[in-house]
Amino acid sequence: MLNLESVTSGRWLAEVDRGLDDILIDHAHCEKKAAGTAMNLLFAYVDQVELAREMTGIVREELEHFHMVLDLLERRGIPFRKISPSGYGRKLNDLVRRQEPWKAVDRLLVAGIIEARSCERFDLLARRFDSGPSHDPELAAFYGGLFESEARHHSTYVRLARLFAPEDAVRDRLRELAAEEAGILAEGEPLPRMHS
Amino acid sequence: MLNLESVTSGRWLAEVDRGLDDILIDHAHCEKKAAGTAMNLLFAYVDQVELAREMTGIVREELEHFHMVLDLLERRGIPFRKISPSGYGRKLNDLVRRQEPWKAVDRLLVAGIIEARSCERFDLLARRFDSGPSHDPELAAFYGGLFESEARHHSTYVRLARLFAPEDAVRDRLRELAAEEAGILAEGEPLPRMHS
Repeated sequence: MLNLESVTSGRWLAEVDRGLDDILIDHAHCEKKAAGTAMNLLFAYVDQVELAREMTGIVREELEHFHMVLDLLERRGIPFRKISPSGYGRKLNDLVRRQEPWKAVDRLLVAGIIEARSCERFDLLARRFDSGPSHDPELAAFYGGLFESEARHHSTYVRLARLFAPEDAVRDRLRELAAEEAGILAEGEPLPRMHS
Repeated sequence: MLNLESVTSGRWLAEVDRGLDDILIDHAHCEKKAAGTAMNLLFAYVDQVELAREMTGIVREELEHFHMVLDLLERRGIPFRKISPSGYGRKLNDLVRRQEPWKAVDRLLVAGIIEARSCERFDLLARRFDSGPSHDPELAAFYGGLFESEARHHSTYVRLARLFAPEDAVRDRLRELAAEEAGILAEGEPLPRMHS
């Protein structure tokens, strides 16, 4: 359902253990960026009524999540600050084709793949914090609560891509981009981030 | 309360009568742009907790208004489309100083002045459509309903500017920018727009 071409490695879970504070701060920035992405798509394709409605809903939800992460940081005494992002989003956006309608298709599918990866990782984190040595009920509930909306956003983005191209072209491109995404994650990142 | 340095001229009201459809379409774009402005300010000053909370609220409200205008257009059989904007927003943004913290002050005050002008004009329109030769109860109620939130957004932006500079510096700059805004409107625009 998530159309991903890899599963998150144990390496990343080890990074979570080592750099949880940074992962949480980066998560807040990711929610803000997800809202910004939906807003940019609304601006670019504002005359597509269905897209405009869906983007409005996603902006609203992502900003809610952003504040949920800020509240969590505050409860844990972790100061929120600007931090350098991982290269993940930039590398994925570099794959977007320049020419319409392919540009629209790729922007939507890249947004959808990022939602899918977040969804996969929130599920992993919810289970990791649910019991065992990393037991943290607050984090388990937090990630468990975000899982569903990320999965829904993934489906929405893939469905909207079909406004701009035939279903089989969208399906093939989604598979290509998902393979690229798996490669980007396999390269790794120097710092612990939500998408390192 | 709105800190404007001019009142809207009869010339603009004549433009409304001549080009109501374009004014309504432009209004939808203005609500979208107001949401985009708040999102950009959230991104630029995300580590200011109070600003981040207020911008989130404004993004949400402006997107709601955007859809209210789209619904109104649909009820009236006016196709929504991309149209060239007036030069108003660009001319105001050209006045923003480059150096922080003055850049933050000016961005917030410019946003606040645009809200104030919208508020003044919504009030004019609500009264214009309430009775007389242009009587249109739906439009009167529509503009009357938007008036209050624009006034509130104006106050919020001016208050947030004080996070970045002393109160008297903000007050003086607000007066300067409001005088510039009055000059920009007095120049006029070739096409009927919300801020022509």
